[in-house]
Amino acid sequence: MSRPFVSLLSDFGLRDPSAAIMRGVVFGIEPDAEILDISHEVRKYRIRDGALLLWCALPYLPVGTHVAVVDPGVGTERRPVAIRVGRGDVLVGPDNGLLTMAADRLDGISGAVELTDPAYRLPAVSTSFHGRDIFAPAAAHLARGLPLERLGPVIDPASLARLPIPAPVIGEGRLDAHVLYVDTFGNVKLTALAADLVAALGPVGSGETLLVELGKDARPVELAWRATFGEAAIGEPLLYEDSYGRLCVAVNQGDAAQGLALTEDLEITIRRA
Amino acid sequence: MSRPFVSLLSDFGLRDPSAAIMRGVVFGIEPDAEILDISHEVRKYRIRDGALLLWCALPYLPVGTHVAVVDPGVGTERRPVAIRVGRGDVLVGPDNGLLTMAADRLDGISGAVELTDPAYRLPAVSTSFHGRDIFAPAAAHLARGLPLERLGPVIDPASLARLPIPAPVIGEGRLDAHVLYVDTFGNVKLTALAADLVAALGPVGSGETLLVELGKDARPVELAWRATFGEAAIGEPLLYEDSYGRLCVAVNQGDAAQGLALTEDLEITIRRA
Amino acid sequence: MSRPFVSLLSDFGLRDPSAAIMRGVVFGIEPDAEILDISHEVRKYRIRDGALLLWCALPYLPVGTHVAVVDPGVGTERRPVAIRVGRGDVLVGPDNGLLTMAADRLDGISGAVELTDPAYRLPAVSTSFHGRDIFAPAAAHLARGLPLERLGPVIDPASLARLPIPAPVIGEGRLDAHVLYVDTFGNVKLTALAADLVAALGPVGSGETLLVELGKDARPVELAWRATFGEAAIGEPLLYEDSYGRLCVAVNQGDAAQGLALTEDLEITIRRA
Repeated sequence: MSRPFVSLLSDFGLRDPSAAIMRGVVFGIEPDAEILDISHEVRKYRIRDGALLLWCALPYLPVGTHVAVVDPGVGTERRPVAIRVGRGDVLVGPDNGLLTMAADRLDGISGAVELTDPAYRLPAVSTSFHGRDIFAPAAAHLARGLPLERLGPVIDPASLARLPIPAPVIGEGRLDAHVLYVDTFGNVKLTALAADLVAALGPVGSGETLLVELGKDARPVELAWRATFGEAAIGEPLLYEDSYGRLCVAVNQGDAAQGLALTEDLEITIRRA
Repeated sequence: MSRPFVSLLSDFGLRDPSAAIMRGVVFGIEPDAEILDISHEVRKYRIRDGALLLWCALPYLPVGTHVAVVDPGVGTERRPVAIRVGRGDVLVGPDNGLLTMAADRLDGISGAVELTDPAYRLPAVSTSFHGRDIFAPAAAHLARGLPLERLGPVIDPASLARLPIPAPVIGEGRLDAHVLYVDTFGNVKLTALAADLVAALGPVGSGETLLVELGKDARPVELAWRATFGEAAIGEPLLYEDSYGRLCVAVNQGDAAQGLALTEDLEITIRRA
Repeated sequence: MSRPFVSLLSDFGLRDPSAAIMRGVVFGIEPDAEILDISHEVRKYRIRDGALLLWCALPYLPVGTHVAVVDPGVGTERRPVAIRVGRGDVLVGPDNGLLTMAADRLDGISGAVELTDPAYRLPAVSTSFHGRDIFAPAAAHLARGLPLERLGPVIDPASLARLPIPAPVIGEGRLDAHVLYVDTFGNVKLTALAADLVAALGPVGSGETLLVELGKDARPVELAWRATFGEAAIGEPLLYEDSYGRLCVAVNQGDAAQGLALTEDLEITIRRA
């Protein structure tokens, strides 16, 4: 890009000025930055939500510096970090698991530092707004071309925090997964990818009915696998592969989470009918 | 403009990353784009809401490429299209009526194509996120200067979908209209323009009282026509011309939709008192 | 900055197109503007909320032109104004108290004009959307380098409206303040700064317990002063200095406003235990 690219994600909300202040701080240090907001409406303190949104978004964004702040531990000993990935991006934020899921997807982690050098922070660092005082300044300096290693001491990528998301279990004719996230349409995203379903059940054709336990030991219900929403009647529940390759439960033009009472972390088991 | 101008509108919501991903895809193809988000909080699946917001906004935006995605039929046979208008803009989105109301207002439709050429889509096209895979790439290529006709076969503008919005009926001393949209202040926008009221009743002076049926065969209530909100007492209901020339019902510093129980598609009849 | 910097704040909401239209109008006049949205989700008609958000944000933004519109009196005789401040910025908006709190913080007001010259408005000025018709055009012309005095007649800075926010009362061993704002985390910001607390009680160490009356003549409760959230248990209420130096009541990873029933304008008294 002709302008260095910086993205921002947080749970700060769009009513309060915190997200805009991060933008302002970046512009103050690197006036030529092209800044893109991924989301500032991540639910408060939901590190896993933020991690998933980064995992979805970053592969479609230009190579750049990505700041993410969902940081219930701000002001404690959790480290502020910057992580370089194989694709060439740098991810900046708290070391609480928010960044690693996306980093793995951008060709893996090739280096990491702790953000300790006061030269690349705002002069006064508060105890509750490191997005403004530490993360945005670090990203802006990186956008200006500062080498990663100047921000602080190199740390072992293996020491970076990772989220305890249970891996789907691919059984013989059976896939066990959990509800990972409910999007604003009410679509329910699972911890499994569509490829995991195929690994468990073999190829599944559009319109084929599957038996799905929505909750541990729940009575199985029949849900059709659909290649597109349009193949389902309006209001019909369905299983599908979302546009990121993830396995999802939806209701055509409806809210599956509400209609089927699906909440996060619920166990989902899928078998052939 | 020194940078090619691209606007985006959708019902994707600001919590999820879809809107940001459309931005990212545009930047990946045309790094110099100046991107403006009109709204991503259009109510889910409300094509008519999106159409009205485009109708309001586009006349005030620079000439450019405008992507709009409210697309309950994604993955079905509804066509992905790009529409050239008299003012010089191109509107990109699903052929479901979302684009034509605004196109008419930008000096009319002068050409249209179906977006079929895979060279101007992302390499993998999903069944549920054409905003990312088809519409944003098409817009970015147009912003780079690609001629419209390169995107796919020319289609007949008369074949483009149009929304079934009932036209207001201008009678002798009587205007019949419907509720079209309730904005975030609770102001109630009708299907009629203020000019339609004048055509039906003749000139109406500020402070003049009119008889308004709020609902089919409802008992008429008296509402004052107001040139400005400030002429009404706080909490007073009123009729006014909004800043787009549209006829509206409001409550000064209050929520008219809630206070007067006005819902979309309600019939409204206005007469002189 | 290489591009002239313009910020926007309003209570227009992100669903409706008004905020985007202000952006569009600025770009139409100054295509090279770098526009940053501070917030468009200020609660409807809450001038004081908008004033506080500007006070928080502007010190962290580049010097530029800042448009703010929370304007329940639009269309009445309240003046549209532009205010130059010591730091070099110009603040543009209604003269209803929205702008002065932030102006004071940017090294004070050095000049002000009323926005009357039709050459720097849109050709048609509506009665309900001065953000589009008067404020955004004025800001764009300022961003292009127009001298402030060209926009209209100079007015006396002492005549600008100011909000009636009660000053905290620093007593001997006692601080009286009010609830000023509840942020989207449920943190409760007071009319007093942390420095006011120190002026009233002397230095307070992290972990020290204070007696706090949450409401006039309410029975005092014990709240610990905390240097960081992380020093409190999850769910524990606390007093702290926010990242703007303001005195706040919070609950670690919880919603203090809800949990402690704190509403705006409530009187808060703090003493040593």
